[in-house]
Amino acid sequence: MDPHDKPPSRDTGAARVLDPSAVAETFRREIRAELAALPEPLFLVGVLAADHGPSYTYAEYTRKACEDVGVRFEIRHATRLSAESAIRSANEDAGVHGIMVYYPIFGTEQDVYLRDSVDPSKDIEGLHTYWARCLYGNQRFLDEAKTKKAILPCTPLAILKLVEAAGFFGQGERPLEGRSVCIFNRSEVVGRPLASMMAHDGAHVTSFDIDGALLFVPSSSGGTHEVHETTVDRAGALRQADIVVTGVPSRSFPHVQASEIREGSLCINFSTFKNFSDDIQTKASVFVPRVGPMTVTMAIRNSLRLYKNTHPTG
Amino acid sequence: MDPHDKPPSRDTGAARVLDPSAVAETFRREIRAELAALPEPLFLVGVLAADHGPSYTYAEYTRKACEDVGVRFEIRHATRLSAESAIRSANEDAGVHGIMVYYPIFGTEQDVYLRDSVDPSKDIEGLHTYWARCLYGNQRFLDEAKTKKAILPCTPLAILKLVEAAGFFGQGERPLEGRSVCIFNRSEVVGRPLASMMAHDGAHVTSFDIDGALLFVPSSSGGTHEVHETTVDRAGALRQADIVVTGVPSRSFPHVQASEIREGSLCINFSTFKNFSDDIQTKASVFVPRVGPMTVTMAIRNSLRLYKNTHPTG
Repeated sequence: MDPHDKPPSRDTGAARVLDPSAVAETFRREIRAELAALPEPLFLVGVLAADHGPSYTYAEYTRKACEDVGVRFEIRHATRLSAESAIRSANEDAGVHGIMVYYPIFGTEQDVYLRDSVDPSKDIEGLHTYWARCLYGNQRFLDEAKTKKAILPCTPLAILKLVEAAGFFGQGERPLEGRSVCIFNRSEVVGRPLASMMAHDGAHVTSFDIDGALLFVPSSSGGTHEVHETTVDRAGALRQADIVVTGVPSRSFPHVQASEIREGSLCINFSTFKNFSDDIQTKASVFVPRVGPMTVTMAIRNSLRLYKNTHPTG
Repeated sequence: MDPHDKPPSRDTGAARVLDPSAVAETFRREIRAELAALPEPLFLVGVLAADHGPSYTYAEYTRKACEDVGVRFEIRHATRLSAESAIRSANEDAGVHGIMVYYPIFGTEQDVYLRDSVDPSKDIEGLHTYWARCLYGNQRFLDEAKTKKAILPCTPLAILKLVEAAGFFGQGERPLEGRSVCIFNRSEVVGRPLASMMAHDGAHVTSFDIDGALLFVPSSSGGTHEVHETTVDRAGALRQADIVVTGVPSRSFPHVQASEIREGSLCINFSTFKNFSDDIQTKASVFVPRVGPMTVTMAIRNSLRLYKNTHPTG
């Protein structure tokens, strides 16, 4: 038995390990209830261009998560060269309510092109440039009447919900007000949207990528967030962070050590690689070793939202 | 004096070196005439986030090319963090007819986000996903009446025009029919669009990137091109290529050698790095060492087209 599976105890200074599956289950209960109130079952399509590896596992995981809540899900197998047409036919099929694409497919910028070939109204992952623009502009609704909510990208949204479940969310308009956050990853898919979402919620975020750090902070003038250059380094950012989020897909990333972080902080890893040292649990108060199950759940939740946006009830 | 600066002679087997500036001049004559017929001067804006280096040089080059043909051009200096708002204000300014952005700005996927933040109707580089979709779908006009032409990305277009100037273009619907082409680069900005444009024009194109080769071929059913997996390797593709195009931004790319290419082929390098061995001119019939001046000229030509699309005359 892995010692980390032991029930955590505050007495020994061991962090509580937060299981994303348990948090996901609370959301799935809500989702089941909402689904039951729809006039038809939701039908989601997954476009998969790999027959093994993490994408395959993730697609199978989606299938189980969909079955669990009562969503119809079909994996459509494609080659990398037929993925675009598989996406297009799902776009054009009125019977398909949502599309999930398992990346990497080309592993190059061409994947960005593919991401943008998903119809935004079926993009349950919330990765289309259309949704990125809504997010960065802090446009939370699509209509004046505020009945149609904008979709948020599912992994950053999953992380925010885990932050909330970990007890690091306050009340009010800016639940992360006064919080200092350090994020290692500034991809267009997770790290940058997450930094801006957290800044919208009041946090001061230091965002690291291979080229260095940027600060994402709440806007002083209301509305969207601001981004500034910074000379803060890893040591400085980690020393003051209440929340540390890592998503570095590389074995060469120096693991974040207990000696680097603040006592009682929340540590979340969304990379499939290990980004934290084992000793992190001696100093963090909550450790979230993976995010995956919450990501899928947030994608299903997004599909409900998209369905309601396109099938408004009087 | 570099021996390659000597006038080439067919007798000694030395390739003709095709100067893109000379070809550009023939297009600029047409552009000047078209500009003179417009009701107002064209006004283009360049967004530049570097104060030295290749981007800076390229922006200065654009300025000179615009002055040369009588287009108003203004460089708007930005930081990497203010580039997006500089683009947005140029988008919203009705007095600005076209926008050119000098990349890299972030040097990451965030640059793709920036590319897509340029209004397609002002995107004189033709890099927006909107234009990519027109290209890959072989949609050459925006309207049923075929009065509004779609924009093509300026570097691939520049290369096609150089192929034509080199005498490698035939007549008719498919001027590259029967031609075999080998391209080293499959970026979303140059290599992939170029491969598809050449396939539309009838060529069989082997497209290489770091992950291997793909074949772009004319569609057997009309309309768009087809893409296939291939086991052809560099040696096989080069041996049969009538046209070799290189754009590998790396010193570690093994230079294409005379021994690898077909006698009498056309060799074009659009990378700022040297991709061909010096001996290439002993075997090629035409060598084009750089494309830059033609790229800028095609961007200006695109701006004319965009102006006409948005200011149709009765």
